[in-house]
Formats: sequence, structure tokens, C-alpha cells
Amino acid sequence: MNGAESLVHALIDAGIEVCFANPGTSEMHFVAALDRTPGIRCVLGLFEGVVTGAADGYARMADRPAITLLHLGPGFANGIANLHNARKACVPVVNIVGEHAQRHIELDAPLTADIQGLAGPVSHWVHTAGSATELDRAGREAVVQARRAPGRIATLILPADTAWDEAAPSPPTEPVATTTAAIGPSPVGADRIDAIAEVLHGDAPAVLILGGAALRPEALERAGRIAATSGATLLCETFKTRMARGAGRVSVEAVPYGVPAALARLAPFAHVVTVGAQAPVAFFAYPDQPGELCPPTAERHCLAAIDEDVAAALQALEARLQASGADPGLQVADPPERCADGALTPATLANVVARLLPENAIVVEEAITLAPALFAATRGSPAHDWLQLRGGAIGDGLPLATGAAIACPGRRVLCLEGDGSAMYTLQALWTQAREGLDVTTLILANRSYAILHHEMDNVQARSGPVAQGMMTLDRPALDWVALAQGMGVPAARADSVAALERHLRAALDTRGPFLIEAVL
Amino acid sequence: MNGAESLVHALIDAGIEVCFANPGTSEMHFVAALDRTPGIRCVLGLFEGVVTGAADGYARMADRPAITLLHLGPGFANGIANLHNARKACVPVVNIVGEHAQRHIELDAPLTADIQGLAGPVSHWVHTAGSATELDRAGREAVVQARRAPGRIATLILPADTAWDEAAPSPPTEPVATTTAAIGPSPVGADRIDAIAEVLHGDAPAVLILGGAALRPEALERAGRIAATSGATLLCETFKTRMARGAGRVSVEAVPYGVPAALARLAPFAHVVTVGAQAPVAFFAYPDQPGELCPPTAERHCLAAIDEDVAAALQALEARLQASGADPGLQVADPPERCADGALTPATLANVVARLLPENAIVVEEAITLAPALFAATRGSPAHDWLQLRGGAIGDGLPLATGAAIACPGRRVLCLEGDGSAMYTLQALWTQAREGLDVTTLILANRSYAILHHEMDNVQARSGPVAQGMMTLDRPALDWVALAQGMGVPAARADSVAALERHLRAALDTRGPFLIEAVL
Repeated sequence: MNGAESLVHALIDAGIEVCFANPGTSEMHFVAALDRTPGIRCVLGLFEGVVTGAADGYARMADRPAITLLHLGPGFANGIANLHNARKACVPVVNIVGEHAQRHIELDAPLTADIQGLAGPVSHWVHTAGSATELDRAGREAVVQARRAPGRIATLILPADTAWDEAAPSPPTEPVATTTAAIGPSPVGADRIDAIAEVLHGDAPAVLILGGAALRPEALERAGRIAATSGATLLCETFKTRMARGAGRVSVEAVPYGVPAALARLAPFAHVVTVGAQAPVAFFAYPDQPGELCPPTAERHCLAAIDEDVAAALQALEARLQASGADPGLQVADPPERCADGALTPATLANVVARLLPENAIVVEEAITLAPALFAATRGSPAHDWLQLRGGAIGDGLPLATGAAIACPGRRVLCLEGDGSAMYTLQALWTQAREGLDVTTLILANRSYAILHHEMDNVQARSGPVAQGMMTLDRPALDWVALAQGMGVPAARADSVAALERHLRAALDTRGPFLIEAVL
Repeated sequence: MNGAESLVHALIDAGIEVCFANPGTSEMHFVAALDRTPGIRCVLGLFEGVVTGAADGYARMADRPAITLLHLGPGFANGIANLHNARKACVPVVNIVGEHAQRHIELDAPLTADIQGLAGPVSHWVHTAGSATELDRAGREAVVQARRAPGRIATLILPADTAWDEAAPSPPTEPVATTTAAIGPSPVGADRIDAIAEVLHGDAPAVLILGGAALRPEALERAGRIAATSGATLLCETFKTRMARGAGRVSVEAVPYGVPAALARLAPFAHVVTVGAQAPVAFFAYPDQPGELCPPTAERHCLAAIDEDVAAALQALEARLQASGADPGLQVADPPERCADGALTPATLANVVARLLPENAIVVEEAITLAPALFAATRGSPAHDWLQLRGGAIGDGLPLATGAAIACPGRRVLCLEGDGSAMYTLQALWTQAREGLDVTTLILANRSYAILHHEMDNVQARSGPVAQGMMTLDRPALDWVALAQGMGVPAARADSVAALERHLRAALDTRGPFLIEAVL
């Protein structure tokens, strides 16, 4: 058994089932080992940003890591932006990065690069294997590190000689489960529960900011009962890793993206309690606007940090407040009225999506300026999960949808994606076609980096023709129907409510991927 | 005048004329400053790998740097792979990377990342501006650093507040020229010239390995005369930054890519003299094959290192050998005979390209397995420049072609590009359409990562169905005509010699970009 086989065996033992890959020469022994050791499904992406973004989407829905397989420093580099997003989403990802054979590195061949240096800024754990015999242990350790609460990025660098050298006659059988038992979230002490119960008992207005594990169905219900009992307000983070929404779930409004709106929304509160979330901050800094969004006069409290046991803390607080009998206020099914036919606008587009969203859908939303309308309209749609870009590095949506569909073969994925963002990683469509994934992509084609028009004003910069040229994508217009078909995904264009409804209904009823370009 | 305006002014003063950009909110003041301070052409790319690859292509043909404008850490990260290629190509690039306002960084907003950490591995110089008032000096210094011989990567990180804060009432006028005078290549001492002349005078067989500045027309002619006088053999690096070729130039064969072929080619030589090149090494390590390609028994000599004055060293050696009257052996015009019509093969495709290549073309070649046939066939085509991927990070070709066309508006760019490689940065086609660039892209569609089939054998790995799945791109087949049209580039498919000839002839005769998918 060579090092690569030993590593594959260890990864399978540690629970890895999927590998998103864009391999090259230095990874050929690892790929060959996947052939000889069945148990890992290998999914090819034609660009590494697809690979890492798909691993993010997979982990969000599977609640366990996939591995990525990347080719040397530049291959890793192409995946960094979506690893940044995965890192901010606090999900587990294990990267396997091929490296030259150790004796080759000093020769400074064309692809030689500082992989450790590139990996450091987006990885919680980086290790370069030194020999074939250590790959069994290193593979298991990488999975353990990725699964440390709440979910981390672990990068294992694999020199080609460690993959092809002889490892051991048979793999050691050290069970991973014993190690991983220690990596769950830290418990929250009773004193903290008591203190926050005290705050919520008081008269001063309080808000709970929910994120992470607090946005799963059961935790949301507990938060709903706590709010009902205490009079506290519930809000959630502006950008969510994975949020349970729709009919039968506790509906929670998000902290607004815009700084003035966020400040106004949070101004009434004397107490801000974070639950699996960071205290809200501005996405960008603006001249003459604060970065922290909580009122300076408010007291801040943390019920459970992101790496703590959020679900248990909510359960304990619910018990402490004797709220378990309260009505959590579940959202009733309340799809919007059908709007009149006509041009597509943010409102009419959101209307169609909200009416047609199927039960148990996974919504991947990277709709940027159109996000608030879509989020609001789907509040009373059938139960669904809502996944968003967490790290702000646009180009996460199509890969996230790809990975989520791999994780959940029985569920429909609806990807709501801005045209500017979609261009960063459009290669994901090819993987969707190859794997026959049930992903419906709705490209929201406003033919601009629309967010920048707002932001230009926000930062108080004056825009002229050069600036306008940097924000408009209409010269030439992108033809998303052609782009999708070029990668094997059937597609159609919609420029009216009726056309969108017709195409979306058909797409959601058909197996495999479909793309609709909604022209706004 | 704010910091951004001060910086733009300094960059213009230092000779910057082009900005390849994919900006976001944190760069809006810089973009606005470009509007108010005319002198820099701003070219939008819809993905950062396009931006950095275009800056590489521009620098290769303009012999001076462009700037890139990138959005925070993730935007920079998306550009790393092509900066790696530019670094290995030894060309100058100045990156301007937006950063959050300094007071915002500690808040850990979604886009916060370790930009310095990401920039370090691919930059020779990294500086984070600390205030608006230092941006004049920092901008000039960045250009000086990029222009240090032979060409380097300089990265200036620009916190948003340093861009919007007040700089100075008028820019200082410290001339950059005085600083840049000191950054040319180091001279080569007479003793080294003498020693190498001695080697070449001797009877033992010697080879000159040419790279960098040795591949420009005049330097090649001197090398040709040196070879004619001394009996030395000329070879060039396997992958060239920019090589003058074709009729009227000294024709030089490249060191083969494959290790056995390279070893055989170099085996006869007792002396290996590098001239603006590294001593040849294997691209990858393979079990049981050496990494160094020079015979272990050969003596190695360096006439001029990459950062030394290669042209002057060749001139001095030519004089020392009294070779200036020798016949350099210029290539005669010798296009191949027209091949019969029929299916496209590497040979017939190369035949068509070699026959139709226009005078003074810029050939960007990222043809991977098809490269040797194309290089050999075009030896007697009209004079042209040949640009290649230097760092092995595939996905450089379309951006390189884009940047080269911006640098040389009067010249035709022909991009010979593998289908697998093209997918990494296909967004470059949109920029070609927007800017109306005279780029003809020939996609060599073998519908596989063909190189990996060879490499799988080379590394002695056994390929099964998983491995086969990682190397084939035919399920589904990419439709490059649709992909190009989706980005506004007219396109056609050719699956025969006659069709390729017809489309290529038409494309080369028409202004603006065109793409031909040559199905092999």
C-alpha cells in the first residue's frame, strides 16, 4: 500500500464520502488510489473556485466535511476566495493539496510555490506530510481538525513522493471516533444562562441576534419561545450559513445590510444578546459612519459563541425562563398573491419565486442588491433552507448550489444569483450538468455590478465615465442562455412575469439542472 | 486632493498607462480618482485571474508594468495564480489592492482577510499604506520595485481611509526617473565573458540555453553569430516569456518538455551555458527520473543571470569571440506545404496555423500537449513573437492575449489554447469583446486534460474509472462557440482542415475578437 492509498483509507475511515477535485500531475497517485479504494465519490470541477465552493455547500447541508483535491500552490490559490467564504461560514473543509516530490522543490520548477504560505491565511490547520508512513495519521488528524466546532478549514499538503512511496503493509486501525468525540462545541456554563435570563426578565428592551446553529429548526423554536416569554426581539445575522425558514418555522428578520437601516433597527435595544453570532458590524467602512452597529449605550451579552454549544444554551435558557410551554409563533403558510403579468422587477421576480418555491427546497442566494426583496417575499413559502455568501467574496453561489445538491440528492436546489457574481465561477454549471444535479439557477440579470452604484454614494465618491464603465456589464451584454448551453445546461430567458413563471415551473418539475436568465 | 488622487497622479508620473481592474466598494475612491485624473486607461475584467493575466501579457509586450486594481484579500486571491505565472515570467506588475479602512479591520467584517499574508508568496515587494500623505511616495516606489530587473511583482495595499483622506494640496514632483535609473540589470564582468569565451574556444561540445532578454531579435542574432563562430549549439527554455521567431530571426529549438527527451537532447554537452535562463529542470518529479536535466558530467556556466544585463553580455561575448562578422543563420521564410483536407490532427492543425500566421503576429500559446507540433511548424512563418505560460498555472492564455492586445493595438494576437486550460479564465473573452481587441482565439478542443493521460504513465500510477473521469471533459462536451457568443465574441466551429482554414482566414482579416473551436 502506498502513501496515497493509506491516506484514502484513513479519510474513508474518518467519514469522508465526497471529493471535489481539480487534480494535476502531482495528484495522480491520489486519484489512482481513489480508484483502488472505493468509498469516496469524486466530483470534477473545471476551476478550483468551483471545487472549494462546492465543498462549502456540501458541508453546510451534510454537516460534515468533504475533501477538496487541488493542484499545487496555484491550484490552491484559485480556491482561496471560496475557502475564505467557507471559513467565514464556519463550515468544515479538508483540503488535500498536491506538492512536488520533496527532492524537486529546491529546483524551483515552474509550478513551485509557497503552498504553506498561501494556505495559512485561510486555514485553521496546515500540515505538510513528510513521509508516506505518516499519511494515515495525518489524514485522520486533518478530518478531526476540520470537524472542530463550529467547523474549520484543514489543509494537508501532500508531496508527490509521500503519495507514491510505500506506506505500510496494512493501514493502522486507530478509530477516529475516539478522537473526534473531543471536538464538539464547548458547553456554556449555568452562570451565563442565569445572567442572560436576568437580562431578559428585566424591562429594558433586548434583542437576540441569532446565527450558526441557532438557525436550525429546533433551536429557532426555542428562541421563539424565549422571545414569546420574555418579550425579547429576535433578529438574525445579515448573511446566514444555513437558516431554516418558511411555513412551520420561526420566522426571523435579518439585521439590514445598510448601515443607517441597521443602526435604526438596533437603536431601540438596551441589551444585545448574541447567540451563535458575532455582534453585528458594517460590511464596509464608510466615512462618517460607525463600524459597530450595536448602539454604544447597549449592553452586549453572549449566550453562546460560535464555537460553543448554541443549541444546548438555548435549551437551558428556555428551561431557565420556563418558556417550554410558550407558543414559538410558527410561520403560517402564506405565499404572496399572484402579481399581475408585466416586466420583471425585484418585487415581481420575488413574487414568482415565493409562489413557486417547492417544499423542502434548498435556496442558495447570492442575489446582492435583490436579496432583501427575495428574503422578505419567501417568508411564508413552504419550509426551506436558505444559504448565503458569508465571506463577501462573490462567486460562491453556483458552487454552493452544486455542493448542496451533491449532499442532498432528494432535494431541489434553487440558486438565486446575480449576473456579476455568477461570472466568477460559472464553470460550476458544467459540473451540475455532468453530475445531473437538480439545481435550478435563476440568474438575476441587471447587467451591472448594481451594488457598486449604491456603494459609490455610500463612500461619498463621485462617479464619472471611468467609474461607470467599471460598474456596467451591458457592453456587451452577457447571454446566460448561451453560456449555460455551452456547458451542457439547458436554459431559457425570461423578461416577463409570465415567462419566468412558465420557465421556473418547468425547471422545478424536471430532473437535472436548468438555468433561467431573468432580465431585469 | 485625496490620497487616491495623489496615488493616481504618482502612478501616471511613473509611467503607468493601463489599469486592469475588478474593483469593489473599497476601491471606489481610486476609481473616482481615475475619472478626475486622466492618463490611465481602465480595462474591466469580470474575474481577477483575467486582470492579473492581462497585466502579465501587457508587460511582456510593453516592457513596462500596468497596474491591477483588486478588491481586498479574496479579490487578490483570485488573481494569485496568474501573478504566480507573471512572477515566473519575470515581468513587472504593480498590484493596487483595496483594504478596509484601518479602523474597520479589527471588526472582522466578512471580507476581512490577511492580504499581506496572501500577497507575500507571489510578490517581491508588499507595502500597506498607513496614511493618505504617503501614497505619492508609495505609488512611485511600487513602480520602481516592479521595474527592478528583470521585472518583479509589487503589491501596494490601500486601506480605504488612506484613499479618501486628504493627502496634500498638490502632489510633490519628485521625479521618478532618477530613482528608476538605478534599477536596470546588473552588468556582467569581463572575467566572466573571458571564461565563457575560453569554454567556447575549446573542443568540448557546448550548448547555450537562452531565455529572457536573450530571446529578443538582436540578442538572438548575437547568439547566432556566437554559435556560428564557436560551434556551440543554441537551445532555448522549454517555456518562454517572449521569443522572437519566424522568418528573418535566428531559429532556436527548445529544450523538450519530457524528461527522457530532454536528457537525451542535453546528453552530448560537456558545457552548459545559461544566458538569461535557469539551468533546465524537469517540470514535475517522477519516480526513478532525475529532476536536473543537465548531464551530471557537464560543467555549468552562467553568462548572464536573469537579473543581469543579458543583451550586453551577449554583445561582449560576441566581440570577445570576434564573431560580429559571422553569419547568424537567419531563418528563411519557409511556410509548410498545404496539407490535404481531412480531419484535424495536431499535425494538420499546426499546418494551417503555420501557413496563415500573419506578419508581426503575437502568438500566445497555451496548447499543452499540442505545443511541440505548433512550435515546430511555425519556425518558417512570417516574423512573430511567441508567448507561453511560464509558471505552469493553466488559465493564463486568454488573459495574456487580452493584455498583449491592449499593449500592441496594431498587431494581431493569435491565442492557441487548450480547452481544459481555457475554462479557468474564459471570462477574458468578454473583455476582448468590450475593448474590441484584435484577438483570434483558437480553442484546441481535445475534450480532455490530455496532458494528464501522459503524466499518469510518467508517474507510474495506474488509471481506473475514477482517474479517467478526472481527465475527460466530454461528458458533457463544452460548446466553445456558445461560450464565446455568450460573452459577445463571434465564433465558429471547425472540424476539418478546410473549415479551419476558412474560419481562421476570415478571423484574421476581421477587426475585433473571434473564436474558433477546432475539434480534434
